[in-house]
Amino acid sequence: MLLSGGSGKRLWPMSNDIRSKQFLPVLDDGSGNKESMLQRVFRQLRLEFPSERAVIATGAAQKEQIEAQLGEHVDIVCEPARRDTFAAIGLSCTYLADLCDACADDVVIVLPVDVYADQQYFTVLRHMAKMVEQDKAELVLMGIVPTHPSNRFGYMVPADTATGYAQITRFVEKPSEDVARSLIDNGALWNGGVFAFRLGYLMDIITSRMTKMSFTQFLATYPTVEKISFDYAVVEKAKSVAMVPYHGMWRDLGTWPALLEEIGPQGIGNHIVSGTEQTIVINELPIPVVATGTKNIIIAASADGILVSDISASSQIKPVVDVLHDPPRFMQHPWGTASVIDRITTGDTITAETRSIDILKGKEWVIDTSHNVEISLICLQGSGSIKQRESASPLPIGQPLSIDCSSAVTIIAESGLHLIAVIRYLSHL
Amino acid sequence: MLLSGGSGKRLWPMSNDIRSKQFLPVLDDGSGNKESMLQRVFRQLRLEFPSERAVIATGAAQKEQIEAQLGEHVDIVCEPARRDTFAAIGLSCTYLADLCDACADDVVIVLPVDVYADQQYFTVLRHMAKMVEQDKAELVLMGIVPTHPSNRFGYMVPADTATGYAQITRFVEKPSEDVARSLIDNGALWNGGVFAFRLGYLMDIITSRMTKMSFTQFLATYPTVEKISFDYAVVEKAKSVAMVPYHGMWRDLGTWPALLEEIGPQGIGNHIVSGTEQTIVINELPIPVVATGTKNIIIAASADGILVSDISASSQIKPVVDVLHDPPRFMQHPWGTASVIDRITTGDTITAETRSIDILKGKEWVIDTSHNVEISLICLQGSGSIKQRESASPLPIGQPLSIDCSSAVTIIAESGLHLIAVIRYLSHL
Repeated sequence: MLLSGGSGKRLWPMSNDIRSKQFLPVLDDGSGNKESMLQRVFRQLRLEFPSERAVIATGAAQKEQIEAQLGEHVDIVCEPARRDTFAAIGLSCTYLADLCDACADDVVIVLPVDVYADQQYFTVLRHMAKMVEQDKAELVLMGIVPTHPSNRFGYMVPADTATGYAQITRFVEKPSEDVARSLIDNGALWNGGVFAFRLGYLMDIITSRMTKMSFTQFLATYPTVEKISFDYAVVEKAKSVAMVPYHGMWRDLGTWPALLEEIGPQGIGNHIVSGTEQTIVINELPIPVVATGTKNIIIAASADGILVSDISASSQIKPVVDVLHDPPRFMQHPWGTASVIDRITTGDTITAETRSIDILKGKEWVIDTSHNVEISLICLQGSGSIKQRESASPLPIGQPLSIDCSSAVTIIAESGLHLIAVIRYLSHL
Repeated sequence: MLLSGGSGKRLWPMSNDIRSKQFLPVLDDGSGNKESMLQRVFRQLRLEFPSERAVIATGAAQKEQIEAQLGEHVDIVCEPARRDTFAAIGLSCTYLADLCDACADDVVIVLPVDVYADQQYFTVLRHMAKMVEQDKAELVLMGIVPTHPSNRFGYMVPADTATGYAQITRFVEKPSEDVARSLIDNGALWNGGVFAFRLGYLMDIITSRMTKMSFTQFLATYPTVEKISFDYAVVEKAKSVAMVPYHGMWRDLGTWPALLEEIGPQGIGNHIVSGTEQTIVINELPIPVVATGTKNIIIAASADGILVSDISASSQIKPVVDVLHDPPRFMQHPWGTASVIDRITTGDTITAETRSIDILKGKEWVIDTSHNVEISLICLQGSGSIKQRESASPLPIGQPLSIDCSSAVTIIAESGLHLIAVIRYLSHL
């Protein structure tokens, strides 16, 4: 069970309210192509667990991006609201029990989707599952062997340092550096937010904290269920908790300096550097970025904006960009991508947008006609068709189409399609 | 007579092949608004010469921008080709003699349009005209009092240092710094490229170098006339040359460091700076630029690209950006502005472009239908009409229009209009 959450601006302008760090296609996949953290984790997971069921717990805002990056066959449990990790894990467990014929004895492993670790990390997941199967504890956690006395993580103090696994006697949440140092001296490990347990164990907790619910009932009541973390609701109350240590690379790529180390000095996208030192350019715009004579600088450009930051200052951009409230301009969909290339606002309200849209070969874009909008489309490249009320016709090239929003409209891409869509939001006028 | 030429990439991405430095609206006009070098020079000129005839000699590429910035009533002589300054000045003199009833005794003052100087500079122009009227010399030049032994300018050595003006005995073109220092010690001044003479004087030289021509004949033969500078063809051959010194601010704003001094630290456009030192942002894009922790950096963003440069390195960007060959994306017209917001290319050929277009209130955009293009327009804001074959109809909002390119089409802006134009270049397909 992969938890895909988070959003925010610490990687602005690449991340935005809908595109979290795990979706950025900036990592080298080892064969010269770029992949995202999500794609990397899923690839690593499948190396260790080729055929086990994988379910991704996430919000509606991320569903399309996950399908775009992992394929539409991926199993997604969509949270109707944000209710913290206990509810999210509970909903997905209910999904497994209720709709997937999972048994109470089956082992569930929960892990964050934005983890950047070695393949060994996934081998540890299997060890954790084994500990649960062997009833060494009702809950097994991953302990990350600390590299430094960080004050940003939770620490777990083991009862002993026996090989393979250990019972946990104590949790310390984000201690001071001094306390962290003494914890580490006593063998404490970081809590990696990875949990293994039997499905029945969690279903019992759900029943006792809430009530016995079907998946459909859980979904319906979801927006009002208790907002509590899995750590507080389950981990801290567990009678026996064991941990399996992971000793390997484990990084948070959630800030620019950390991400840049992985992207490497050559940067990404249309750019030229000349006479620069330690200057990394990530450019998603079609226009060129030119950097000359700069030193220790990150330059990131997307449809949402342009960041130029001293690399060390780039870990602290969040408060600076938090004042920006423009809705995201770049969107990834299962069928392709859309960028807002022109936007008209009246006060704070968007009244019209022009979007540059690319639909992938073989994919279909079902146009959202549920809002009170007026849409014009012009296809400029590729071949495809437009379908409405069961009648399909070839998509003309260069001819503007006024979309009839009274019923569903689908654009079908026979080859890759490039379109311009002009949208007017009528309800705001 | 103002000479408006030049183009290039030393101020990329603000300047491009059609937008020269004199058109950038980056200078403070003293009342809180921004003006260009062209607008500033014209304003200063009119303070000294409120009603004298002013003519601007330029190429076709700059005509629309000059009209956009100075108004459509401005007197422009459009050079059909680039044939250096002698031909340009000759063509405009022929224009004055032939079409404006100017007399042979009338005084002409030629100055570059990209001069950045005090108002005193324009008072010197009047002194120069007086010298010509008093027949002190057949040609009077402006001598700029040097501030340093530059190797980038031409030097003029005066016969004496009498007050008011001096005969010139010698010209030295771009000497070494050492030679420049000794020239300055001997009272030499910089050649400011400003010339005053009687119209008849130059008409005689044209007749002797070429042949007697009407303005129409000159225009027709222009692409084949001799390519020679006014300095070589006229100044160096003149029997008596005097100069009037100008002692004041005189700057070339043709590089980023020089221009930034005038723009000032507050920058221009949508941007946020935080924890920066000496970081200047000039942003013409609608998306925000955020700079954090940077030092001594210029960030300039336009529809054509994004420059991030150490300020001292920014004087040398030309060779770096010279490898960029994309046609300009930002265009200023007498009726408004157009930005390319989406471009499709096949190899090096542009096959389609989407433009965001703003038409100024009361202006008319005559759509160029002469090329083999397919144009679709969608008006998103404002009110106006579309006229073709003498029949006008109101411009619908949000409705796509396929433009019939078989005859001229004019868009008339009753209020400011915002349109999206999608253009397909059929001849390339």
